[in-house]
Amino acid sequence: MIIVLKNHTSEQEVNELMSWLSRFNVSTNLVQGVHSNIIGLIGDTTHVDIEAVQAKECVESVQRVQEPYKNANRKFHPDDTVIDVRGRIIGGGKTQVMAGPCSVETEEQIITTAIAVKQAGATMLRGGAFKPRTSPYSFQGLGKEGIDLLLQARKVTGLPIVTEIMDVSDLDLFADIDVVQVGARNMQNFTLLKELGRCDKPVLLKRGLSGTLQELLMSAEYIMSEGNQKVILCERGIRTFEPAMRNTLDLAAVPLLKQKTHLPIAVDPSHATGIVSLIEPCALGAVAVGADALEIEVHNDPKNAWSDGAQQLTPPKFAEVMKKIKALAEFMGKPVDDAQ
Amino acid sequence: MIIVLKNHTSEQEVNELMSWLSRFNVSTNLVQGVHSNIIGLIGDTTHVDIEAVQAKECVESVQRVQEPYKNANRKFHPDDTVIDVRGRIIGGGKTQVMAGPCSVETEEQIITTAIAVKQAGATMLRGGAFKPRTSPYSFQGLGKEGIDLLLQARKVTGLPIVTEIMDVSDLDLFADIDVVQVGARNMQNFTLLKELGRCDKPVLLKRGLSGTLQELLMSAEYIMSEGNQKVILCERGIRTFEPAMRNTLDLAAVPLLKQKTHLPIAVDPSHATGIVSLIEPCALGAVAVGADALEIEVHNDPKNAWSDGAQQLTPPKFAEVMKKIKALAEFMGKPVDDAQ
Amino acid sequence: MIIVLKNHTSEQEVNELMSWLSRFNVSTNLVQGVHSNIIGLIGDTTHVDIEAVQAKECVESVQRVQEPYKNANRKFHPDDTVIDVRGRIIGGGKTQVMAGPCSVETEEQIITTAIAVKQAGATMLRGGAFKPRTSPYSFQGLGKEGIDLLLQARKVTGLPIVTEIMDVSDLDLFADIDVVQVGARNMQNFTLLKELGRCDKPVLLKRGLSGTLQELLMSAEYIMSEGNQKVILCERGIRTFEPAMRNTLDLAAVPLLKQKTHLPIAVDPSHATGIVSLIEPCALGAVAVGADALEIEVHNDPKNAWSDGAQQLTPPKFAEVMKKIKALAEFMGKPVDDAQ
Amino acid sequence: MIIVLKNHTSEQEVNELMSWLSRFNVSTNLVQGVHSNIIGLIGDTTHVDIEAVQAKECVESVQRVQEPYKNANRKFHPDDTVIDVRGRIIGGGKTQVMAGPCSVETEEQIITTAIAVKQAGATMLRGGAFKPRTSPYSFQGLGKEGIDLLLQARKVTGLPIVTEIMDVSDLDLFADIDVVQVGARNMQNFTLLKELGRCDKPVLLKRGLSGTLQELLMSAEYIMSEGNQKVILCERGIRTFEPAMRNTLDLAAVPLLKQKTHLPIAVDPSHATGIVSLIEPCALGAVAVGADALEIEVHNDPKNAWSDGAQQLTPPKFAEVMKKIKALAEFMGKPVDDAQ
Repeated sequence: MIIVLKNHTSEQEVNELMSWLSRFNVSTNLVQGVHSNIIGLIGDTTHVDIEAVQAKECVESVQRVQEPYKNANRKFHPDDTVIDVRGRIIGGGKTQVMAGPCSVETEEQIITTAIAVKQAGATMLRGGAFKPRTSPYSFQGLGKEGIDLLLQARKVTGLPIVTEIMDVSDLDLFADIDVVQVGARNMQNFTLLKELGRCDKPVLLKRGLSGTLQELLMSAEYIMSEGNQKVILCERGIRTFEPAMRNTLDLAAVPLLKQKTHLPIAVDPSHATGIVSLIEPCALGAVAVGADALEIEVHNDPKNAWSDGAQQLTPPKFAEVMKKIKALAEFMGKPVDDAQ
Repeated sequence: MIIVLKNHTSEQEVNELMSWLSRFNVSTNLVQGVHSNIIGLIGDTTHVDIEAVQAKECVESVQRVQEPYKNANRKFHPDDTVIDVRGRIIGGGKTQVMAGPCSVETEEQIITTAIAVKQAGATMLRGGAFKPRTSPYSFQGLGKEGIDLLLQARKVTGLPIVTEIMDVSDLDLFADIDVVQVGARNMQNFTLLKELGRCDKPVLLKRGLSGTLQELLMSAEYIMSEGNQKVILCERGIRTFEPAMRNTLDLAAVPLLKQKTHLPIAVDPSHATGIVSLIEPCALGAVAVGADALEIEVHNDPKNAWSDGAQQLTPPKFAEVMKKIKALAEFMGKPVDDAQ
Repeated sequence: MIIVLKNHTSEQEVNELMSWLSRFNVSTNLVQGVHSNIIGLIGDTTHVDIEAVQAKECVESVQRVQEPYKNANRKFHPDDTVIDVRGRIIGGGKTQVMAGPCSVETEEQIITTAIAVKQAGATMLRGGAFKPRTSPYSFQGLGKEGIDLLLQARKVTGLPIVTEIMDVSDLDLFADIDVVQVGARNMQNFTLLKELGRCDKPVLLKRGLSGTLQELLMSAEYIMSEGNQKVILCERGIRTFEPAMRNTLDLAAVPLLKQKTHLPIAVDPSHATGIVSLIEPCALGAVAVGADALEIEVHNDPKNAWSDGAQQLTPPKFAEVMKKIKALAEFMGKPVDDAQ
Repeated sequence: MIIVLKNHTSEQEVNELMSWLSRFNVSTNLVQGVHSNIIGLIGDTTHVDIEAVQAKECVESVQRVQEPYKNANRKFHPDDTVIDVRGRIIGGGKTQVMAGPCSVETEEQIITTAIAVKQAGATMLRGGAFKPRTSPYSFQGLGKEGIDLLLQARKVTGLPIVTEIMDVSDLDLFADIDVVQVGARNMQNFTLLKELGRCDKPVLLKRGLSGTLQELLMSAEYIMSEGNQKVILCERGIRTFEPAMRNTLDLAAVPLLKQKTHLPIAVDPSHATGIVSLIEPCALGAVAVGADALEIEVHNDPKNAWSDGAQQLTPPKFAEVMKKIKALAEFMGKPVDDAQ
C-alpha cells in the first residue's frame, strides 16, 4: 500500500500516522521528497482499511499494491481450485454445462426438460425455485415445492442440481442441493455470503449487475474467510448504457479472473443478453476465452414459460448448441465432462 | 401495453394470443396494417408479465404505456404521501435532515455526535449498527449493541432514529427504531422488502448502485403491495464510468421521481460522491431540485472513524453547512422542520 | 508520480529505468522495501507519458499524484478565470443565461425567439447552425445561412451569440461569433481543439457523453496549450444505464471542477435529461451547486421545431423559469448579469 | 412506428397530427381505445424524425418498429457485404488479421514489425500516423511522414495498409491507403463520415466508447448514404464502470450486429482491455463469436514504444497467438486468409 502525504505535513503528523499504522502488523517505509512524502506499507495489508487511511487529514491519496483478498488470491494459491460435484469436476480441465429452465414450474416440465438436457449432453441441471423478480406481481417461484421437484429430477436423471437461494432463512431447504447459486442481486448480501461460508457446499456466485471484478472477488472472500473454499464465480453480463441487449457480457473478465484467482469461472450466456439467438455464439465465445462451466436456460416449452421465455432454448435447439459446445471445448483442450 | 406482431403472423396465432391475453382481465384492440399487426391492451396491465408476452413466437416487440407499479404511482394517488416520524413530517412541505455517523462506534461517539447534530439543527439521527462492507476484514458494525446505543442517543436528544437493516433475521432488533433503512445493495433483496411491507414502520429505501428509477419504484411496490405505505425513496449516487467521485449523484432523479410517485424523496450527499468538500454543494443542489429530506454523515472525529472517514463532516463543519441548508430550504418554501 | 516495481526487479533494471526517467527533467527517489521497490517522481510530471512508464517490463503499477494538466490547473492559477463576452462576465461572480433554439430555422423564428429570451432576462443567445445529428436523414442545420441569421438576431437584440462548430474547415464562418461551442461528440476532436487554441475567442467546451472530468480538463488543456485561455467547461449530462432520461446530469461535477480548475463552469439542463419538465429543477440545481452559466433551449414554437422539440421551452415558460433562476442566483450571491 | 396519444386528445388534434404525418409518405392507421389512441405508421419510416413526433403536444410516447437505417440494414440487403482489399476478402468466409504497431515511429520500426507480422501470418498492416491522444503533451504521431513509411512497408511486404484519419483536411494524404480507419472518438464526427462516404475506399469504423450499436449503424449509414458501401464495423471495447480493464469488450455485439447488418465485423482485442495478457483469449473469443477480422497491436520493441506500450505484443508472442487464431478460425470454418 502506497500512502502519499499532503505537502507541508508536519513531522509530528507523520509520526502519528506511522504509529497508527503499526497496529496493522505491517512495516512502514517513509520516503521524503521535496514536495511530498510517501509511506510504503510492506507485508499483509489485507486487514488495513483503505478508507480509514484515506480519512487521515494528512493523506493525499492511497493506493493498494496488493489485492485486498487472500483466500481467493492466486498469488497465495497458485494451483487451480477443483470442485467435485457428484463426480463432475469444475475447474480441473473439464467443461461443465448446467442447463435447465429459468423457473421450476411443474413436475412434467422439470422432468421432461431434465431428461432432454441430459440426452443432449448437459452435465448438471439448473432450475429456479426461488425467483428474484423485479415486480411483486410476477411469478415468484414455487419455493420448497420447486426444490422437491428438482430433487425428483435428480433421481430420474442423476444430474446434480444447481439452484438459487435468496435468503438465509431458506438455507435448511437447500440441504440436499448440490450447488447453491447466489444471484446477481445478492452478490453483496453479506449476511447470506457469511452463512454460506459456514456450509460445506459448492457456491455458484454470480457477478452483480454493477459488480466490479474486485468486488466479486471480495464477495468470494466473504464465503472463503468463513471456511468454505468451494466457490465458483460466474460472469452473467453487466449493466451498461447499451440498450440493444439486456446486459453486456464481459467475456474478457474470464481470463482476467483466471489470472487473479484460482477459483473456477462459469459464464451464463442466457442472462447475459436476454436474446435467444445470441446464446450459441456467446456460449462458444465463453469456451474460447477459457470458461470452466456454462449455465444455459432450456425449457421444454419456452413460449409458455412462466418467466424469461424469450431467452430460453428449446431442447432441440439446445441439442444443436450443445454439439458445437462439445466440439469447441474438445478443440480447446477442455472437453465437456462425460461423468454422466 | 402495445404489442407489435411479426410480419406474416397467421390469423390463428393472432387469435391464440388474443385469447391468452384475455386471462389478464384487460381488453384488447387489434389493428391490422399492411406489414404488421398491432395489439393494444387497455385496462390495468400491472399484472401482465411483459417477458411472458415477449416470449410468444409471433411477438416482434412489446412496449408498456402504463407503468408497472400501482401503489407507488402518482397517477392513482395524486396527493403527496406524508409520513409522520415522532412529529417530524416527511413529504409535507418540510425538509428533514438526518445526520449522524456512518457507524455507531461507542457510547461517547454517538451521544456526542447526536447532541452536536441536534444543536446544529438536524431533525433526525442516523447511524449504522449493521454495516455492509465490501471486505470481510473491515469493521462490520456493532450489531445489537449499536441499536441499543442509538436508542440511548434518542433518549438523550429526542431525535428519531434512522438505521440500516441488512437481513430479515435481524428484524426483531428494529422494533423500537423509527425509520428502517434499506441500503443500496439490498434494493432488490425482495425477501427483505416483502417482510418490511408487513411492518407498520417507515422505510427509507435507497436506490441501488445500478438501480433504474423504475426498478426503485418496483422495489417500493414490493413493500407497499404487502400493506406498508410508508416508503421514502433515497437517491444516493449511481455507478458510472466516472472515476473522480465514488458515485455519480443523479439529482435530476428527484424531480422525475416526484412526477412519477407520491412518495417523499430523500438525497444522501455523503455517499453520493465520497468527497467531504462536495457535501455542501450537493446538499444545496438537492434542496434546490426539490428533495424532502437529506441524509448526511457527521462524526465527532472523522479522521479516526471506523468507516467512511473521508466523507464525514465534523460537527462544526456540519453546523456551517446546516446554516446554508436552512436558509436555502426556507427560500425554496420548504423550511427545515423545527419539531424538535 | 509513484512507480511500483515488480518483485525481483534486478538492480540493473532499476538503474535503466531511473536513467530513462531522467530525460523528463524530474528528480527520482527510490524506496527499497522487502517485497517491492517504489520510485517517486518529483517535479513537473505533465510531460511524463504514464503509458510509456506502464509499458516498462519491471513496472507493476503507476499512479499520478499531480494532475496531467497545467494551464487548466487551479494549483498553478488559483484565481478564477473571468471571460468578458461583449460586456457579459463569465466566471466573475455573475450568472450568465444562454438561451435560444436548438436549431436556427428561419429569420422569423430566430428573431422572435431572441427578442423573447432577451425580454425574459437571458444574457446571451444560443442557436445551432451546424447540427450533429445521429441520423443522416435528420435536419442537419442551415450552415452558413444559420450563422448569418444569428448575427442578424444579435444586431436586433444586442445579445452575444453562442453557436456550435463541427469541423475545422468551417472556422472562417465563425469569425464574428462571440462564443464558439464544441459539442459533446467533439470533446476529443483534437484537431479542432488545437485549431481553436490558436483563435482569440471564447470556447464553450461540452463534456462528452462518456468523458471523464479529467479528460474534459485535458481537452481544455489542448486549447489552452496552443495559447487560447478563454475556455468555459460545460456539464450536459453523461451516458449511464438509466433509461428514464436521455442522459444523467452530473451536478456534483460542477463543484469538483471548481476545485480542480480556475475555468468557469456552465450547465446545460436541456440536453441533460431531454425532458422539458425537468429543465426548471435542473437549472435551479445547477445554480445551487455553483454554476457560472446556464445554457437553455427555448423555441418560439417547440411542437413544430425542426429538432429537439420535446426539450425546448416556450418563451412564456422560459420567462417563468428565468424568474426563479434570477431569484435563486441572487440568493446564492451570484446574480444573473444585467449587462444588457 | 407506433405513436401513443395522450388521454383526452381531441379529434382535431388527432386530425392535425395525421395530416402532419402524411408529409412523410407513410400511411397511418388510427386505433381508438377507451383510454388512449394509437397511430401506427406503415411504410418507410427512415425519414420520420422521431424527436419531431415526440415533440407534438398530444403524443405520449413513440416507438420505432423498423430500424432507422436502410443501407446498412440486413433486412433490405440479406447477403453479406464482401470487401476486397488488394485481394484480401473481408466478410466473405475468410478471417483477416490486421497487425502492426500503435504508432509508426521510425522506418526501422515499421519495416521490421511489418515483416515480422507478415511472417507470422497477418494479412494486413495497421499503424498509426495521426494519433488521437488524451494529452496534448503526448506523442501525436508522425503525420504525413508516418503515411509515407506505411506505404514503404507495403512495398516491402505487400501487406495492405490500415491507418486512422483524424480530420477531413488530411484526406488527400490517404489517397494510396487501402483501408481508412475512423477511430472511436470520431464515430460521430459526421463531417468526416460524410466526406468518407464520397470516397471509393474501405472504411474501418470503430465503435465509440459510449456508442450504442444503433448509433454505430447510423454512423455507417452516414457513409453509405453518400455512396460508399465499403464499411467494416469494429468493436473495440466500451466504457463501463469496471476499472480493472481499460474498456469492456462487448463480444456479444458481434453476432447481434451480424443479425442487424450485412456489413463485415472486426474486433480489436488490443484496445479492448489495454492488458497484453488478455489479447490472446479475447482474440480467440472474437473468432468464436463470428468476427470477420481482428486488429491487433504488435511492436518490435513494446517496452520502448512511443504509445500504448503496455498493450502491444512482441513479434514472437504475436506469432504464438497467430498460430492459435489460425487453428481456431479454421475450426470455425472461416480460415485466416492466405492471399499473401
